[in-house]
Amino acid sequence: MRLASFAVETAVGPMRRVGIDHDGTLLDVTAGYAHVLDQRGEPTPVEVAETVAPADMLSFLQRGDRALDAARDVVETVPDADASTGPGGARLRYDPAEVDLLSPLPRPNSLRDYMAFEEHVRNSMGEVPDIWYEIPVCYKGNADAVVGPGDDVSWPSYSDQLDVELEIGAVVGTRGTDVDADEAEAYIAGFTLFNDFTARDEQLQEMQGKLGPARGKDFANALGPHLVTPDELDLPNAAFTIEVESEDGEIDTWSEGTVGEMGHSWGEIIEHTSAEETLHPGDVLGSGTVGTGCGLELGRFLEPGDTVSLSVEGLGTLTNTVVTR
Amino acid sequence: MRLASFAVETAVGPMRRVGIDHDGTLLDVTAGYAHVLDQRGEPTPVEVAETVAPADMLSFLQRGDRALDAARDVVETVPDADASTGPGGARLRYDPAEVDLLSPLPRPNSLRDYMAFEEHVRNSMGEVPDIWYEIPVCYKGNADAVVGPGDDVSWPSYSDQLDVELEIGAVVGTRGTDVDADEAEAYIAGFTLFNDFTARDEQLQEMQGKLGPARGKDFANALGPHLVTPDELDLPNAAFTIEVESEDGEIDTWSEGTVGEMGHSWGEIIEHTSAEETLHPGDVLGSGTVGTGCGLELGRFLEPGDTVSLSVEGLGTLTNTVVTR
Repeated sequence: MRLASFAVETAVGPMRRVGIDHDGTLLDVTAGYAHVLDQRGEPTPVEVAETVAPADMLSFLQRGDRALDAARDVVETVPDADASTGPGGARLRYDPAEVDLLSPLPRPNSLRDYMAFEEHVRNSMGEVPDIWYEIPVCYKGNADAVVGPGDDVSWPSYSDQLDVELEIGAVVGTRGTDVDADEAEAYIAGFTLFNDFTARDEQLQEMQGKLGPARGKDFANALGPHLVTPDELDLPNAAFTIEVESEDGEIDTWSEGTVGEMGHSWGEIIEHTSAEETLHPGDVLGSGTVGTGCGLELGRFLEPGDTVSLSVEGLGTLTNTVVTR
Repeated sequence: MRLASFAVETAVGPMRRVGIDHDGTLLDVTAGYAHVLDQRGEPTPVEVAETVAPADMLSFLQRGDRALDAARDVVETVPDADASTGPGGARLRYDPAEVDLLSPLPRPNSLRDYMAFEEHVRNSMGEVPDIWYEIPVCYKGNADAVVGPGDDVSWPSYSDQLDVELEIGAVVGTRGTDVDADEAEAYIAGFTLFNDFTARDEQLQEMQGKLGPARGKDFANALGPHLVTPDELDLPNAAFTIEVESEDGEIDTWSEGTVGEMGHSWGEIIEHTSAEETLHPGDVLGSGTVGTGCGLELGRFLEPGDTVSLSVEGLGTLTNTVVTR
């Protein structure tokens, strides 16, 4: 499934919903599950659907398999339903063009970012630290600075070197402590594209203080467009591209390749991080930049007005424009 | 005011409350404000009190001055009230011994930790990086690993060098972006003690990867016992002590001194961090360790069963015991 978060304009203000992208139509999960329950004779379908499959993605993830099973029921039932609305008159389907597609997880519970692709480490740090081969190192990002697909990113005035980083974000779906690597992939609800926008000059400066990074990364984390369940993906073999369109419409392919194997698998990352520490639904784990997945490795940086499109086979395309204030 | 979070055992399970420590009695802020409103003739005092001064500290902080004003009304009214309960029969006062004192902010919105005391940087890093004099560097901690006063801390099995760090935690009370240093202190709701427990061996190892730290810090962040409003404090001149009591009852004063001036003031930290980035109520900003405020600087580490008490004049004493699983 390709899960999404979106906002619908209504007379009482924008309402946030969880959707499923199904052949280009957005199915409303909460309304769709109320429809499913209604068909089954449930006496209070709206209330049960709002509890089992809430319209807020973080709450939805916290419901675990119960919510994902409800979403699967929606995919099996709603596309063929004659009705256009469910009980209470809630719409079952939207054209993506008529709603505001948000980041699938607009406010993660937390955001950890690893550095799991050796080629990126080698290209950007010169030499790979010995410790890199032993443990998956990470820093924590700003969970309050998530931007969604199509959103503008403000160019930080303290930076002259704005960069992109193509990463894969794994979203934890199940609470876990001391998780074995072999069992860890079951704790991942799905994956999404993660553009870890970076003020490279600020980052390199602040990291001389041996902590972080912080402000060099914290102004914008783009996550989207969808949260794709693991069954739909073959990430190591997925093709990726980074395309940058300038303000005057010139399109430049910065990089293309195959995602490749991570030096530390998702299972190893989760085992390491959950050792005597608890991972929670809605925690985002960034893979680190794929090899040749950032301007630093390619000797180039963004210009004001650039529109960046990151694509990974199966995950879709995540597009953002950098604007000056 | 000395704000607190505490849990009351009830027939329907533990109920979390916000309190004020007033001459050794805990005043229940939500119940107390309902009492105040009832006395003023408010027709629905319980509902209004629960909205204005909620019983969850993060929600309370999000209400801003409205909630703090309500708390001040409680301090002025409830200690002299004849009644022992407010409208609906909610108790107005508790003996701290009969409730479970929690961390004042059991789940911060986020946790940033700076390194603002030069003496600690010099003692622990050998030399102070040039960048330290220019900007307040920080890493982000694990907001899901907060422990409260009196709580046990599990000794991480991956560490042989468990350490304490005496820090001051500033809790943001007002949302702010691009805040000037001169105006920044108004964004702080209050301060609390922060024992940044550290698996020193793990931290030093993982930081060779140039990110973080992460797991070396993420197993436990003790915050408490109270959230003390700035008007009650003179932090640079406050005395501090670190006392460690061994399992067999031997008490050892590891360190004592005066907190001293930070190399970057709270105003400078907030100005730097909020530049084109938004700080939120419930964000915790750690000062970094005070000079001689950790075992690394003193050439000693904890033993299993040790009970650590950090004290800072005005902030009280934060006590935790490290236990092996």
